[in-house]
Amino acid sequence: MSRPRDVTNRQLRVGILGATGTVGQRFVQMLEHNPWFTVTALAASDRSQGKRYGDACNWRLPGEMPAAVRDLRVAAPQAPLDCDFVFSSLPADVARESEGAFAAAGYPVISNSSAYRMDRGVPLLIPEVNAEHVALLSGARGFIVTNPNCATIMLALALAPLAERFGIEAVVVTTMQALSGAGYPGVASLDITDNVVPYIAGEEQKIERETLKILGAAFAVSAQCHRVNVVDGHLAAVRVKLARPADPAEVAEAMASFSGPPQRLGLPTAPAKPIIVRSEPDRPQPRLDRDAGGGMSITVGRIARDAVLSHRFVVLGHNTIRGAAGAAILNAELLVAEGLLKA
Amino acid sequence: MSRPRDVTNRQLRVGILGATGTVGQRFVQMLEHNPWFTVTALAASDRSQGKRYGDACNWRLPGEMPAAVRDLRVAAPQAPLDCDFVFSSLPADVARESEGAFAAAGYPVISNSSAYRMDRGVPLLIPEVNAEHVALLSGARGFIVTNPNCATIMLALALAPLAERFGIEAVVVTTMQALSGAGYPGVASLDITDNVVPYIAGEEQKIERETLKILGAAFAVSAQCHRVNVVDGHLAAVRVKLARPADPAEVAEAMASFSGPPQRLGLPTAPAKPIIVRSEPDRPQPRLDRDAGGGMSITVGRIARDAVLSHRFVVLGHNTIRGAAGAAILNAELLVAEGLLKA
Amino acid sequence: MSRPRDVTNRQLRVGILGATGTVGQRFVQMLEHNPWFTVTALAASDRSQGKRYGDACNWRLPGEMPAAVRDLRVAAPQAPLDCDFVFSSLPADVARESEGAFAAAGYPVISNSSAYRMDRGVPLLIPEVNAEHVALLSGARGFIVTNPNCATIMLALALAPLAERFGIEAVVVTTMQALSGAGYPGVASLDITDNVVPYIAGEEQKIERETLKILGAAFAVSAQCHRVNVVDGHLAAVRVKLARPADPAEVAEAMASFSGPPQRLGLPTAPAKPIIVRSEPDRPQPRLDRDAGGGMSITVGRIARDAVLSHRFVVLGHNTIRGAAGAAILNAELLVAEGLLKA
Amino acid sequence: MSRPRDVTNRQLRVGILGATGTVGQRFVQMLEHNPWFTVTALAASDRSQGKRYGDACNWRLPGEMPAAVRDLRVAAPQAPLDCDFVFSSLPADVARESEGAFAAAGYPVISNSSAYRMDRGVPLLIPEVNAEHVALLSGARGFIVTNPNCATIMLALALAPLAERFGIEAVVVTTMQALSGAGYPGVASLDITDNVVPYIAGEEQKIERETLKILGAAFAVSAQCHRVNVVDGHLAAVRVKLARPADPAEVAEAMASFSGPPQRLGLPTAPAKPIIVRSEPDRPQPRLDRDAGGGMSITVGRIARDAVLSHRFVVLGHNTIRGAAGAAILNAELLVAEGLLKA
Repeated sequence: MSRPRDVTNRQLRVGILGATGTVGQRFVQMLEHNPWFTVTALAASDRSQGKRYGDACNWRLPGEMPAAVRDLRVAAPQAPLDCDFVFSSLPADVARESEGAFAAAGYPVISNSSAYRMDRGVPLLIPEVNAEHVALLSGARGFIVTNPNCATIMLALALAPLAERFGIEAVVVTTMQALSGAGYPGVASLDITDNVVPYIAGEEQKIERETLKILGAAFAVSAQCHRVNVVDGHLAAVRVKLARPADPAEVAEAMASFSGPPQRLGLPTAPAKPIIVRSEPDRPQPRLDRDAGGGMSITVGRIARDAVLSHRFVVLGHNTIRGAAGAAILNAELLVAEGLLKA
Repeated sequence: MSRPRDVTNRQLRVGILGATGTVGQRFVQMLEHNPWFTVTALAASDRSQGKRYGDACNWRLPGEMPAAVRDLRVAAPQAPLDCDFVFSSLPADVARESEGAFAAAGYPVISNSSAYRMDRGVPLLIPEVNAEHVALLSGARGFIVTNPNCATIMLALALAPLAERFGIEAVVVTTMQALSGAGYPGVASLDITDNVVPYIAGEEQKIERETLKILGAAFAVSAQCHRVNVVDGHLAAVRVKLARPADPAEVAEAMASFSGPPQRLGLPTAPAKPIIVRSEPDRPQPRLDRDAGGGMSITVGRIARDAVLSHRFVVLGHNTIRGAAGAAILNAELLVAEGLLKA
Repeated sequence: MSRPRDVTNRQLRVGILGATGTVGQRFVQMLEHNPWFTVTALAASDRSQGKRYGDACNWRLPGEMPAAVRDLRVAAPQAPLDCDFVFSSLPADVARESEGAFAAAGYPVISNSSAYRMDRGVPLLIPEVNAEHVALLSGARGFIVTNPNCATIMLALALAPLAERFGIEAVVVTTMQALSGAGYPGVASLDITDNVVPYIAGEEQKIERETLKILGAAFAVSAQCHRVNVVDGHLAAVRVKLARPADPAEVAEAMASFSGPPQRLGLPTAPAKPIIVRSEPDRPQPRLDRDAGGGMSITVGRIARDAVLSHRFVVLGHNTIRGAAGAAILNAELLVAEGLLKA
Repeated sequence: MSRPRDVTNRQLRVGILGATGTVGQRFVQMLEHNPWFTVTALAASDRSQGKRYGDACNWRLPGEMPAAVRDLRVAAPQAPLDCDFVFSSLPADVARESEGAFAAAGYPVISNSSAYRMDRGVPLLIPEVNAEHVALLSGARGFIVTNPNCATIMLALALAPLAERFGIEAVVVTTMQALSGAGYPGVASLDITDNVVPYIAGEEQKIERETLKILGAAFAVSAQCHRVNVVDGHLAAVRVKLARPADPAEVAEAMASFSGPPQRLGLPTAPAKPIIVRSEPDRPQPRLDRDAGGGMSITVGRIARDAVLSHRFVVLGHNTIRGAAGAAILNAELLVAEGLLKA
């Protein structure tokens, strides 16, 4: 294994579009100590333009806002920005125009937004799963690379070793999703205290569509999505119909031993193990397992045979780390390692 | 329709086994104004024996403990008790012996416990669904009648009109269950605050087994159960494979128009509509819908086609009312109306 | 005691300003079965104008929206409205102009808004405490009567018997307030899950000022306010310095025996006991006690001597019933009984 | 400043009494990377004796149990134990006997339990506040040193600079305390979901007594304690009557600039700033501020004049870190630095 650290003789300069939002704040937090990237520009589509980030941003993460970004001025999400490439967590409606314009202006756009995910020429990447999809990029200086929806990432990452080893014929997934997935202010407290909401707009369709694009497959996917009273960490109960017989222990082993390019390449944000398999009967749990692997590992438990499909399990991941900001950062690191992102 | 009110020229005298627990308290609360039953004896398996109920019971329901029971002494759960029949919400381990002994001593036992549910000669009743199962009773003076597990009741009640109208080939159910289902003290707050627990001991098996006994059917059932941070109200995401094609509107109509003997007989605790179908995209929700029909109606929403099975919906019910105490009371009322329970 | 029921040979026709909000919905719910009032007009300052209330209002209370109001059209909060008088729960900024205009146009305005509470000629009423303040009204056909802030009502109601019996020299109150007090969407779930917010804009000043106006007193009041993760029910920890020595049992007795004009007059919404005193060490609690007296009683517990002031207790009340909609309705009923509000 | 690191040419060997509980687990977690201490013995008073810690302990903290302790056998809390000294978080009833026996057997006991806190010859230490109280120790090889109750620590630490700079005449404190303060299983979820409990057994007395012992003062203290739905982080609303006039800015400055022996000595677990003063109107908040300074800093906000006493503020601290395990560890580090604890 050749460590790619030396591909960057200096840090890449990063802009963040949507920097004041829930995911934007995660970008800022996760990039504070990233060895390859340094934040040099911040932009947002809201009223914060022109203000210092320290004044504009209602910082909602535990811990202090990193000192290095406090005095950056929040710009409009329009080129030019003083950076080598941009991360984006713009709202989908704004993202379509803004991200397209950045790409046209020659900026690589590493996006967490849903706007371009299903576009034919846009890779929808989970680096452990379908790193080869970067081949979709045309070679233009500006381009868009996306990561999946927060709930889709956990599901697709958990399914990837099963698709590879056993084949998949159908998937039934029921999600219990965290509040931070809806942004800020997002879900009203009166809607979720002592409650569950069995609806997240557009989410079921995203999961059903994006999973197939990532896995390059064509099986049936059924998703039912719920919002639960949890700060961070999406949980999903999954049934899967495998194409070949498999003992539950084999399923567990396929997941536990799974790894991909991020691990091989030693990408800075890559977790040692993308999938942690636990054997306790009551795990994974959001509060206890969401931060596994710095929030970049997903945790799977309760693997068993299923009476209707063929197997079942429960999967959990940190929705704003592995499911959003961390996903995009890992995508960017992959592109650096592959020589597609440079200063 | 002959109103059965006149079958009781006086109220039946009721004992409650397990009277100090979460479900026992619901029995006490729901029976306060029941026109057919009056509580004359209270028993518990815990340290409360010999004390006044007002002293022994840590009353955890909103509102005051009914005045009429405060001075009753809590007895051991052993015959004789000063009553015509008993309700039981004893823990399963105690219930096996105690309920059996009461039945042997000639008491009808209307039980919410799991101990006898799967016994061949014991009806597992939802009065709207399988009232005819009372025929299992041998005619002995003492007998046991049970109601299903709290999560099973909602599921089986929602499935009943579909089984009847379209036939069912498979069911996949994912539950998000309330805290009161685990009794008191039950779930530790540290286990569920900002969290979901993907495990309830024995629950998945109960749902899979009991559903088939109630519906008298033999399709495959897959249940995954979760505890969520909700006080009352079990929610379940359901996929079902129907035997015959059905437009979602037909499914909704079959549920909304469903009723059974409790409605025909005008049983005191029967809701006007056993199944309320809602069309909003984000309902049912536990906090908003659990008290529908006095807690005796279940609420179904999000009825749609499903990509893997054939249809999907979300169902909610109040777990300690329709799912426990109210279920047993409705069973007892059915037995009164059928002449099987008398003074 | 002359029952005032006969003062109304027909129901008064009521308009609700701010009808789509959290308190507006409570007005609608509480008035459904009120014997004196019937809702004939609904108004709101938001985008709902012109729509059917059934379509405009995102009904957030358990249970169904009353059928009688569904087809009413939501008007702008401007006179004329088809009603004998108006209840108002408009936001303070809108209320100043709108309520003033209604009063000028000859409508009695029974307001829950803060806009006019401290105005010299406007009664700030708790009918059990300072019913005589209606004398402030000039006799004009249109007028404004207000009720206090939701947290102030509980405090002032609990203090009233102490002020009367022992005299008060100072009050220190620390509130833990419910989410519904902030309206809808109000508090973001990400701000309050696994959290407490030690700040409610303007609240401390309101409590300090309004308490003195209601009690017609001039002692020092110190309030610190917190938002906690509770749906309904404001809790307050209170220390009070009484002017005369008092045994805690005397304090309890003064509170428990307290009543006022609403009880004497038998007003429809009056609770039998305005103050319920509990002796358990761990009461009152929001979830268990907020609905006492139909939400119109406050509950006091933990009465004891205090090492710094002279006495302490904890008080709880339902913030959208006794603290808002119910407060205004009781005010209106008092005015009817006193002949100040008529068709 | 002389760094005391060299006082330990090797790590001290540590036993933990009460190792399986909530605070015991925090000891294990915090000691994993402590440069001066290494865990060599674990003891508990429950059924876990004789088992591997990895099997005996239901690990409830986010992240994995440290590998180094998994295979340690859980012993009874009786001497001899294979260690140089013990930390104790035994329940108070067990602690009295067990800690006394360990001290008698020549072990230094650094205790988080309440059993010996008020004993005359036992230092009740907050190292930043009253490090000089170690002089109470007699010089015997075995001894007991305690830290205050979790809520008292935050209060006393916040008051210390005010006592020193301005003098204190009275304190009124109202706490909103986290679930982890009650241990595991501790508070039942049904007791705290959508609720506040205005009672914590013995807590108010502990705060009133311990604060005075620590500060060596004799002013009046009034404490009212509440349990709120927060995982970690005790919040307290404080009013204080200062002996000398002080501008709120001076109060803030006194707190923000406060430090003590742990900072001077560079103790490994000492936070850079014991008291962080924030100026936002809505801070501190448990979820956002409890981990400040690795959980060893307290955070103070909302400093202002008070109408009844003289000043007010809100203070927050992590109850199982600064308020328990971290407090004891800092005490032990102080004793090492002072030469009172050695191999």
